[in-house]
Amino acid sequence: MKLRSALTALALTLATGLAATQAIAQERFTLRLAETWGPNFPIFGDATKNMARMAEEMSDGRLRIRIDSANKHKAPFGIFDMVKAGQYDLGHSASYYWKGKVPNTLFFTSMPFGMTALEQYAWFYHGDGMALMQEVYEPHNMLSFPGGNTGIQMGGWFRKEINSLEDLQGLKMRIPGFAGEVFAEVGVNPTNIAPGELYTALERGTIDATEWVGPALDLRLGFQQIADYYYTGWHEPATELQFLVNKETWEELPDDLREILRIAMRTAAYDMLVHSMHENAGAWASITEEHPNIEVRTFPDEVIQAMFQANQKLLAEAAEGDELAKRIVDSQRQYLDNARAYTEISDRAYLNTMAELE
Amino acid sequence: MKLRSALTALALTLATGLAATQAIAQERFTLRLAETWGPNFPIFGDATKNMARMAEEMSDGRLRIRIDSANKHKAPFGIFDMVKAGQYDLGHSASYYWKGKVPNTLFFTSMPFGMTALEQYAWFYHGDGMALMQEVYEPHNMLSFPGGNTGIQMGGWFRKEINSLEDLQGLKMRIPGFAGEVFAEVGVNPTNIAPGELYTALERGTIDATEWVGPALDLRLGFQQIADYYYTGWHEPATELQFLVNKETWEELPDDLREILRIAMRTAAYDMLVHSMHENAGAWASITEEHPNIEVRTFPDEVIQAMFQANQKLLAEAAEGDELAKRIVDSQRQYLDNARAYTEISDRAYLNTMAELE
Repeated sequence: MKLRSALTALALTLATGLAATQAIAQERFTLRLAETWGPNFPIFGDATKNMARMAEEMSDGRLRIRIDSANKHKAPFGIFDMVKAGQYDLGHSASYYWKGKVPNTLFFTSMPFGMTALEQYAWFYHGDGMALMQEVYEPHNMLSFPGGNTGIQMGGWFRKEINSLEDLQGLKMRIPGFAGEVFAEVGVNPTNIAPGELYTALERGTIDATEWVGPALDLRLGFQQIADYYYTGWHEPATELQFLVNKETWEELPDDLREILRIAMRTAAYDMLVHSMHENAGAWASITEEHPNIEVRTFPDEVIQAMFQANQKLLAEAAEGDELAKRIVDSQRQYLDNARAYTEISDRAYLNTMAELE
Repeated sequence: MKLRSALTALALTLATGLAATQAIAQERFTLRLAETWGPNFPIFGDATKNMARMAEEMSDGRLRIRIDSANKHKAPFGIFDMVKAGQYDLGHSASYYWKGKVPNTLFFTSMPFGMTALEQYAWFYHGDGMALMQEVYEPHNMLSFPGGNTGIQMGGWFRKEINSLEDLQGLKMRIPGFAGEVFAEVGVNPTNIAPGELYTALERGTIDATEWVGPALDLRLGFQQIADYYYTGWHEPATELQFLVNKETWEELPDDLREILRIAMRTAAYDMLVHSMHENAGAWASITEEHPNIEVRTFPDEVIQAMFQANQKLLAEAAEGDELAKRIVDSQRQYLDNARAYTEISDRAYLNTMAELE
């Protein structure tokens, strides 16, 4: 709930020669933000703190943002409902968490075999991304904005090497959401397990494999101590978090504070992508140094092909009978095709050229 | 020169119950920015307009930025001197243009076989990049900030295919700066030609090849009509433009406007990288459609290896006898090694996996 500290607005203008000094009574706003993460959650939690700090400093304290982490509000997956109802002005979470409530929220985090972070930001800001996302959130009394990107997530930690589709049959793996459904189509037995229990589950063989995020966040959970194979990514190539804004809050902000909030969110999102690169690079260096036994693997071609087919099938099903879903899926596919043709001759060609040198 | 419209500051506080309404006389600033580019120069010029618009809207008009393009100030390569002297408050240009004046400015745009945009932003903001850049600009009365990234620049347009080092001997190519020196080491005859004359020079055989930027900006110059081979990049993998700020201007801004300026520049820089991706993808699609004869090539291995060796040699020479240059080169190399090891298992692995599907 927004706290207004100014009850009335007052404006006076002093003419001093040719110059005008405006003295304007400035309303102060304290917005409350609920985040899915616990307190001091690295990278994700840094994004909300960075956003709040920028907003406060740019507004000279007129726009303050009070962050409640999950330990405070006790509802990590209640962010959507709380911001919708106005219990909180702002939220920080991930759009695909709301898939059970509003299926089309699925598409605004990251899709298997989808766009990279740069391609996806281009789709959001220069393609139809922002407009389509708003069409999904509008009926729920909220605005949704990009909230920080992890970069390409790793395919996960496996205790045994995967050499064929056969090796995936009945494999128990922690992999939630749409990617879990794709994996189920090719024979994996996907499960969801609370983060705090993941290490023990993997160590005791309750599960055979788990994905999490990438080196920086995986390192803290210790998987490198108990699984030798680290697979490269396919399922979340550009996981974008989300800022949610209650619509009444948004509309009550004066134009300048609304722009400050918009730019603080936009910058914090980009900053998180850069921060993720830095932390992942550091964590990966420490993993390779301390666990030289870890081997990086890419799933064999037949596995990738089967997952890609399964993904296409599930996407077609999601688009069937839902006109908005179809427009989103078509827009993403078209944008990806176009952008990737260029990424192929720029980023991919360059990275492959340099890899030849080593 | 900064124009202050408020001569005196006035502050009054009205207590209304528990709330405080602050009425503060707000100074207004109009900063003048000189850019290297002509008016309406796409992408680069959009970055300055985007920055100015954000600053003005976030400050509710208290911070205005008046942009002078090259047609106005007539000194596209005088930005450094004009901002240093305070003739302009701000500049938008590229750091490596000042290499002749201050050799160490070379390192803050993009280096051959260097970091990608994401890796380089991580070096700037989480490595030593910003501090080292400031060390170079400090004695010149300025601050320097990232000002927008083009992404990986293409290796250029060639009228004949390059199959060996032999094919490069005596080849006349427009390629300026450090990359031109690298190319000279492997036998190319590098020249610099004004953009307006490049098309004719290439068409008439005055030059055999030219690099420019990437599809979006190359398309406008028409090279696709007269050269069949488009080479992938190696020499500027993350060309970052630059905002320059006169030090007195920076220090005279109140804290909130300084933060607004800082964030507007930072966001405009990121936004330009995303904008470049969008425009390059669109331009590349139109080139491939209208000129199906264009073939994308990567330089053969022996050429790449020779250029890499030449680059290492020139870098070592640059670092020799200049303690600051050595620290910059070492910092970049170390950061690149660390970051690239992670880029290899994330971006590169993912892009290669998906390329297999096509």
